[in-house]
Amino acid sequence: MTQIRIALAQIDTCVGDLAGNARKVLDYSSQAAKAGAQLVVFPEMTLTGYPIEDLALRATFRKAAWDTANQLAGDLADQQLGGLYVMVGTVGTDHAAAKPRNRLVVLHEGRVWAGYDKHFLPNYGVFDEFRIFTPGERPVVLEVFGARIGLAICEDIWQDGGPVADLAQQGIDLLLTINGSPYEEGKTHTRLDLAAKRAAEVQAPMVYLNQVGGQDDLVFDGGSFVVDADGSLLERSPMFTEDLSYFDFDPDANHQRTSSIAPMPQADEEVYTACVLGLKDYMDKNHFTGVCLGLSGGIDSALVAAMAADACGGEGVWGISMPSMYSSDGSKDDAADLAGRLGAHYDVQPIEPMFQAFQRQLGLEGIAAENLQARIRGVIVMAYSNAKGLLALATGNKSELACGYSTIYGDAIGGYAPIKDLLKTRVWDLARWRNQAAQAGVGIGGLRIVGNERRESGRPLPQGIMIPVASIEKAPSAELRPGQKDSDSLPEYELLDRVLAAYIECAEGRADLLARGFDAVTVDTVMRLVDRAEWKRRQYPLGPKVTALAFGRDRRLPVTDAFRE
Amino acid sequence: MTQIRIALAQIDTCVGDLAGNARKVLDYSSQAAKAGAQLVVFPEMTLTGYPIEDLALRATFRKAAWDTANQLAGDLADQQLGGLYVMVGTVGTDHAAAKPRNRLVVLHEGRVWAGYDKHFLPNYGVFDEFRIFTPGERPVVLEVFGARIGLAICEDIWQDGGPVADLAQQGIDLLLTINGSPYEEGKTHTRLDLAAKRAAEVQAPMVYLNQVGGQDDLVFDGGSFVVDADGSLLERSPMFTEDLSYFDFDPDANHQRTSSIAPMPQADEEVYTACVLGLKDYMDKNHFTGVCLGLSGGIDSALVAAMAADACGGEGVWGISMPSMYSSDGSKDDAADLAGRLGAHYDVQPIEPMFQAFQRQLGLEGIAAENLQARIRGVIVMAYSNAKGLLALATGNKSELACGYSTIYGDAIGGYAPIKDLLKTRVWDLARWRNQAAQAGVGIGGLRIVGNERRESGRPLPQGIMIPVASIEKAPSAELRPGQKDSDSLPEYELLDRVLAAYIECAEGRADLLARGFDAVTVDTVMRLVDRAEWKRRQYPLGPKVTALAFGRDRRLPVTDAFRE
Repeated sequence: MTQIRIALAQIDTCVGDLAGNARKVLDYSSQAAKAGAQLVVFPEMTLTGYPIEDLALRATFRKAAWDTANQLAGDLADQQLGGLYVMVGTVGTDHAAAKPRNRLVVLHEGRVWAGYDKHFLPNYGVFDEFRIFTPGERPVVLEVFGARIGLAICEDIWQDGGPVADLAQQGIDLLLTINGSPYEEGKTHTRLDLAAKRAAEVQAPMVYLNQVGGQDDLVFDGGSFVVDADGSLLERSPMFTEDLSYFDFDPDANHQRTSSIAPMPQADEEVYTACVLGLKDYMDKNHFTGVCLGLSGGIDSALVAAMAADACGGEGVWGISMPSMYSSDGSKDDAADLAGRLGAHYDVQPIEPMFQAFQRQLGLEGIAAENLQARIRGVIVMAYSNAKGLLALATGNKSELACGYSTIYGDAIGGYAPIKDLLKTRVWDLARWRNQAAQAGVGIGGLRIVGNERRESGRPLPQGIMIPVASIEKAPSAELRPGQKDSDSLPEYELLDRVLAAYIECAEGRADLLARGFDAVTVDTVMRLVDRAEWKRRQYPLGPKVTALAFGRDRRLPVTDAFRE
Repeated sequence: MTQIRIALAQIDTCVGDLAGNARKVLDYSSQAAKAGAQLVVFPEMTLTGYPIEDLALRATFRKAAWDTANQLAGDLADQQLGGLYVMVGTVGTDHAAAKPRNRLVVLHEGRVWAGYDKHFLPNYGVFDEFRIFTPGERPVVLEVFGARIGLAICEDIWQDGGPVADLAQQGIDLLLTINGSPYEEGKTHTRLDLAAKRAAEVQAPMVYLNQVGGQDDLVFDGGSFVVDADGSLLERSPMFTEDLSYFDFDPDANHQRTSSIAPMPQADEEVYTACVLGLKDYMDKNHFTGVCLGLSGGIDSALVAAMAADACGGEGVWGISMPSMYSSDGSKDDAADLAGRLGAHYDVQPIEPMFQAFQRQLGLEGIAAENLQARIRGVIVMAYSNAKGLLALATGNKSELACGYSTIYGDAIGGYAPIKDLLKTRVWDLARWRNQAAQAGVGIGGLRIVGNERRESGRPLPQGIMIPVASIEKAPSAELRPGQKDSDSLPEYELLDRVLAAYIECAEGRADLLARGFDAVTVDTVMRLVDRAEWKRRQYPLGPKVTALAFGRDRRLPVTDAFRE
């Protein structure tokens, strides 16, 4: 058999944008053909975007997706690309199934040529596929230039048995999987180990093609790769950027030749870049060109502003200092210093006149008066958002959100929260890492997210550090009353974050936490704060469902542990 | 065989409150025993509450639920109730299954006696059970005093085949189902038709025991019933209230005797009561004793205030009039009139001083200035909520929420939105119905939600009408600029609501809507508004997921139809 050149088209799709996604497939296929590829692989649900959730259940959307696949097959043929095998994911329908299918189709010679339906439909964590899809029933082997290529979609390789086991029995020359696998810290190694296991199972090399880009609250990290039958790495695409790489597959060889292997970022760079990519794509896909946020001089808003500058350039960032009578001079200076370093717009809007206007009528005290300050700031940030068409950013971190240490409709306002899944200790780590990268002259240009032209920001690298050292070093404070410190209300963050990780991430109970050596007072304090905050996070009002199809639902969050063992 | 007295314990459980739910089972079982019952049936997932969503996945919670069931069996025996067969739902675990089970257990003679696991796990609409449970594998027939009682849980009877088909083959004397079936308008008849079909299938009478009460955004309407093998209605419990009724089952009789049959409310009363029960239970389960809301003089806030007064008494309602320079005198008078009729607290907080304070610094125009007014009102309502510990109510209706005709962090603030699933035309209908009921002297006391002592409000019935006629009759206006009318921005509600029903409830596409006879301009306007509002509704900031278990997710709402066919 002859060698087959396979193009790994690791692209960033947009949910619902059928025309835009199809256009991108056409572009990448054209590039791949020029580079001599015979087969081009795109990510899971390429045409529809992923995850499409309940959009799959709209018949009009499914019909439009079907029309798009046919139109695209025709367009490829019109551009003399009909000889290519173009593998794309989409939503499929057939009369035998009650629900649609998560389908891989091959576009070839102007036609939609073959279909494989995903067998294992993940229904845990961020996935709800069993809700919207019917599982596939049969394995599919594609014969391309004499080579037998077995197909699988994402979760199919994460479960034992099923289609991969069938393919192993049938015998294949290559296992090819398309994926929409969301980023999680450290997942790269898990995927490689899994791929090595499956390659051994089918006794053939395996292609793992992953989606890249942010979609709502998910970030897909790309990092597509090829392993040989013995598990050795043959190719790896870069993380966090669109990419077109090639793997020259020789069906007759015992061992395949190694292609390019992109280096891996270190841990802090990886997480930071994931956050920036998530924000950048949220802006792009929702047509925002700039952001606005409150700059308090503290570490959270400083890190978010740095991420925003990396995502859209400092000129797209509106930083608003909103000092009160309780704001220290240091905080105001740090905010101004940060904005200058980032090249961001910087406005000062003192809140005291509004605070006095409210207080003359309401005369609030205690927590209500503290919340009032945060809410006045929320109104100002939203005024910037409305007046200038900016995306309002929330600057809360995971530690304070978990404990309810924030004000609903105050500092919690915004359309996107870049650091909502970072514990406070991680926020400090990333700020230090970003400064080191800037000092080393790496800056924005060195981040992988500017790996292709779409992500090029074009602005000069910041010199020296990006985030004022004072913002990193000082004791955290909400500055809503004189001398207030976070540690008045919360355990020290070093301790708090370890308890939160065990309680939230590991779903441990009180007995488990005590067995880890945490003291009972801390454990009870944190559990009470987290359980109460569960309710505070429900900022969109609940209300009764009266009709058959009401609006979207609130899901019970997985952190309630109000019972005590 | 002897006759068996079956108690239908239609109770209101609370998710996560294992001890409270168990206490209620003990109380009702004791009452039932005194009335001579041998068997007491409780709703689906009695001990855990329903729906427990991802709480089922916490091992500590499952262990606590298991301990609760054992403790309860012991407590029943200690109170000389060990001879009763007490059927409760709970979460079960076994070593063979990866996920927990939705289980029915029988408590008898101090032990947890038998278990049936739900087979069909609904995974559509508001249900996500396949996500958290493993399906049961075998049917269970219970022998009680010689009678063969087949068991099923909720969705098991909504699907053909499965356990009911097995039971029909085995032969049973009675089919007994426990349910957590959420309210939908008109669902009573659907359930009755279904039950008649299943009773015919198993050739035996069928007991349908449903949960009652509000849980987050679901309302369970109760209305438990018994049908004979020929489908005739033998018993019906009232809707929207806890209830303990009895069915004397004679295993030897060809036809069972009819027991009490509660009357059905008419359509407007049914929907109104569902909304009040949802609000009342949300308050009770979250320990709120009062509410606050803005009273604009318009129909939406008037209806919400009336519902709140019905839920917790007028003395628990804080109505806040927040006039601006654009508020008409009529609006202010109507708000005061309403508060007086309801016996609600009534404060006037003009917003002009705050508006001027913001505008001196920000100088906003257009929509940004309109939103500023709504957000100042939001800050004031939240100040009342914080200062007095009140639940803030959002007053938006489904028509305006669907079209994005509201201000994020403004009129959309609040923890609960009693009319968020009512189209505007329905809001008017319910206001008229509530006035008629008040005029007829029915008032609060006549509503079914005060059918037991827990729901007794004790306050006198309002005399005459409750909701000022002017609020019902006048043209809707947001009063955010001079002379503004809703009809400036939206189609007339009579038309709008029909388009919304087709587009949202029936998931129709553009071609379908045109085929119904709607004009193209209206269809395109409404589709554009709804699709844009999909994004506006996401008020809690999205953010990237970085760790294995992040906070709860946003679900794609089912109304996006941004493509055009």
